[in-house]
Amino acid sequence: MRRPILTLLSDFGVSDVYVGVMKGVIGQINPDLLTIDLTHQIPPQNIAIARFHLLNAYPYFPFGSVHVAVVDPGVGSQRRAIAVQTTDAYLVGPDNGLLSGVLNQYPAIAAVELTNPQYWRTPNLTSPTFHGRDIFAAVGAYLASGIPLDHVGQAIALETLVQLPIPTIQQKVDTTNQTLMIQGCIQAIDHFGNLISNIPASMVLGKNWSLIVEQQSVVGSQTYSDVEPGALLSLIGSHGWVEIAVNGGNAQSRLNLNLADSITVVVRSREAIGQNEIG
Amino acid sequence: MRRPILTLLSDFGVSDVYVGVMKGVIGQINPDLLTIDLTHQIPPQNIAIARFHLLNAYPYFPFGSVHVAVVDPGVGSQRRAIAVQTTDAYLVGPDNGLLSGVLNQYPAIAAVELTNPQYWRTPNLTSPTFHGRDIFAAVGAYLASGIPLDHVGQAIALETLVQLPIPTIQQKVDTTNQTLMIQGCIQAIDHFGNLISNIPASMVLGKNWSLIVEQQSVVGSQTYSDVEPGALLSLIGSHGWVEIAVNGGNAQSRLNLNLADSITVVVRSREAIGQNEIG
Amino acid sequence: MRRPILTLLSDFGVSDVYVGVMKGVIGQINPDLLTIDLTHQIPPQNIAIARFHLLNAYPYFPFGSVHVAVVDPGVGSQRRAIAVQTTDAYLVGPDNGLLSGVLNQYPAIAAVELTNPQYWRTPNLTSPTFHGRDIFAAVGAYLASGIPLDHVGQAIALETLVQLPIPTIQQKVDTTNQTLMIQGCIQAIDHFGNLISNIPASMVLGKNWSLIVEQQSVVGSQTYSDVEPGALLSLIGSHGWVEIAVNGGNAQSRLNLNLADSITVVVRSREAIGQNEIG
Repeated sequence: MRRPILTLLSDFGVSDVYVGVMKGVIGQINPDLLTIDLTHQIPPQNIAIARFHLLNAYPYFPFGSVHVAVVDPGVGSQRRAIAVQTTDAYLVGPDNGLLSGVLNQYPAIAAVELTNPQYWRTPNLTSPTFHGRDIFAAVGAYLASGIPLDHVGQAIALETLVQLPIPTIQQKVDTTNQTLMIQGCIQAIDHFGNLISNIPASMVLGKNWSLIVEQQSVVGSQTYSDVEPGALLSLIGSHGWVEIAVNGGNAQSRLNLNLADSITVVVRSREAIGQNEIG
Repeated sequence: MRRPILTLLSDFGVSDVYVGVMKGVIGQINPDLLTIDLTHQIPPQNIAIARFHLLNAYPYFPFGSVHVAVVDPGVGSQRRAIAVQTTDAYLVGPDNGLLSGVLNQYPAIAAVELTNPQYWRTPNLTSPTFHGRDIFAAVGAYLASGIPLDHVGQAIALETLVQLPIPTIQQKVDTTNQTLMIQGCIQAIDHFGNLISNIPASMVLGKNWSLIVEQQSVVGSQTYSDVEPGALLSLIGSHGWVEIAVNGGNAQSRLNLNLADSITVVVRSREAIGQNEIG
Repeated sequence: MRRPILTLLSDFGVSDVYVGVMKGVIGQINPDLLTIDLTHQIPPQNIAIARFHLLNAYPYFPFGSVHVAVVDPGVGSQRRAIAVQTTDAYLVGPDNGLLSGVLNQYPAIAAVELTNPQYWRTPNLTSPTFHGRDIFAAVGAYLASGIPLDHVGQAIALETLVQLPIPTIQQKVDTTNQTLMIQGCIQAIDHFGNLISNIPASMVLGKNWSLIVEQQSVVGSQTYSDVEPGALLSLIGSHGWVEIAVNGGNAQSRLNLNLADSITVVVRSREAIGQNEIG
């Protein structure tokens, strides 16, 4: 059997031993798993950003991987602790919408509430504030080791899983200029200051498009070095979203934009392009 | 044999290759070890914080784990490099008190000074400023691979191991109000801004207690969501210390407290509670 | 066979899932590799700092290790993606000078351009902005798994590999004072605020030397604790460069120096020392 993969995503940071301790729990259950950190730098309690990152990482892991994701402001309350099986993988975490980004694209085929303390770190001594260590890491390690889903808890109806509303995209056709205006927003800002929108690649791929942000129009490019060093550009980022970048620079500090700020993508019809070329 | 676990804790940060290089040394000795980072973000040269984190992580690792901990302002001086065996695990690091938090609770059964260069990275070429790489990582990897403790150096008396004084707790009984006042301090602040005191859970568990900080009284709770979003609370944190938190927020920035600042826990007797309920 | 080692170095940071996703690609190809992070905190697009860190880490990894290094401002442009074999190891990354620090000291014996899409993540779907994931991680994993270099692409001439100019060192003999003045600069600043020059240990080792910085003369020492707590010192750092440090403190914030600022090392001849001792 191939060595199973277990990933970890959290808002625990790396300055404390929270993540190390989760790995201790995993290593105690099965030291032969390949444990991979997705990130532990989710802004504290930010379920939306966690959902975004988990969705982006998900397709790059092999069949059977187990993803343990813990951004859990409701820990110790009545929110459920769950594990979900898709056709590809397992997800383990709180039922607070964190998993819903993946599940919208890769539907669940089964889900359980983690009610069986036999697969917790210890059946009797569970911290009300650290289920990442005491429940999620342990259950994830057991699932990655081959324990079937229905052993770790009671089945729950898939339609009861908590959904986190996703910021919507508005589309408007401008018949005069033969253009489609797509209004979205910034859903994440990466380490390089790239501004990542919620507009998927599929809406612009192969089309003539540009982006309007802060009264500037930015032509859609392929890669950073398509424009001069220091120039703004828009492109389809590596995870498949329209994003705004600066070649060799930082778009966030250039534009001073923040999460949830609006951006507009303009897609022009071939006819509109033809007219412009003539006129 | 189960795959052995070796943990690393340091103040090396993750922006340089210091930690990566230690893992290269370990991988050269035994690539089959499971190496787990506890944290490398100990504030530079802060032995007390390192001791705190090592103690908190220690119980979550299986029998036979090796913990290499390097916060070592005295590197290259006369301070000893040591390895210590407890009934559960091995500790490797400088003899400067960093290991004393663990050893106060999980007593040593044997200790050696790392005097045998055969188990260093190279016997002849040791940097006076990076024993983490040249001695501690190498010795840790050998111990995790089954080399006996007495091979890596000469036995030293357990009572000579350096202790780091722990901030003390003051207790005062108030007979008038039938309360016990416990005065401690903040010994760590985590990534979420939770203020972690040096008052252990055992002093408040199952009792009626509250906490006084900055002239505010904060009732002891079970978990963050027991109070309104944004409200202060005190609780027993996941590592077993009384801590101060904000539900969905950051207690440090709310209260503007720092390491070593005082806090007071008030434990009320059942009689005092009874009187209040009557009166 | 010993478990092969693959290292990763990048400017991707750890707040996004970029590094996690690279490890997913590697794990999908071969989950039995030992993957070690050197650092992902290279300042964005800073090829010189990346070259410095890769060179410093390189000697601490065993024969046959594969080093994947991605600081790649020209991704998607005409810059080549390459793999290089030395007598010890493999290097994989963009051909932009990032690898040239290692190759100046550990010469290449063969190099290829990564033209064979069979060893990319997927032959047909390669992001123009994330070759770290789609090409470099995948090729690195295949090389570490035993695929020969000439399978992953077409041979290229070693003399065509891009070199990044290294800041030069000026030497001047002062016959009057019988001293040698070596002028270099700060090429890196580490997590502790140590200022690391581009003057190699070999130029001062075993000699009587001191360092002049900001009109202060700082005597060469062995280790931090050779001077009083809080005092400036200069020493040969663990990676073999002359550096400036503060015992228990931060030299960068003390001196307010930055990358590329000048420093001067003064090496005195034995005769000069003799004269001074007499006079």
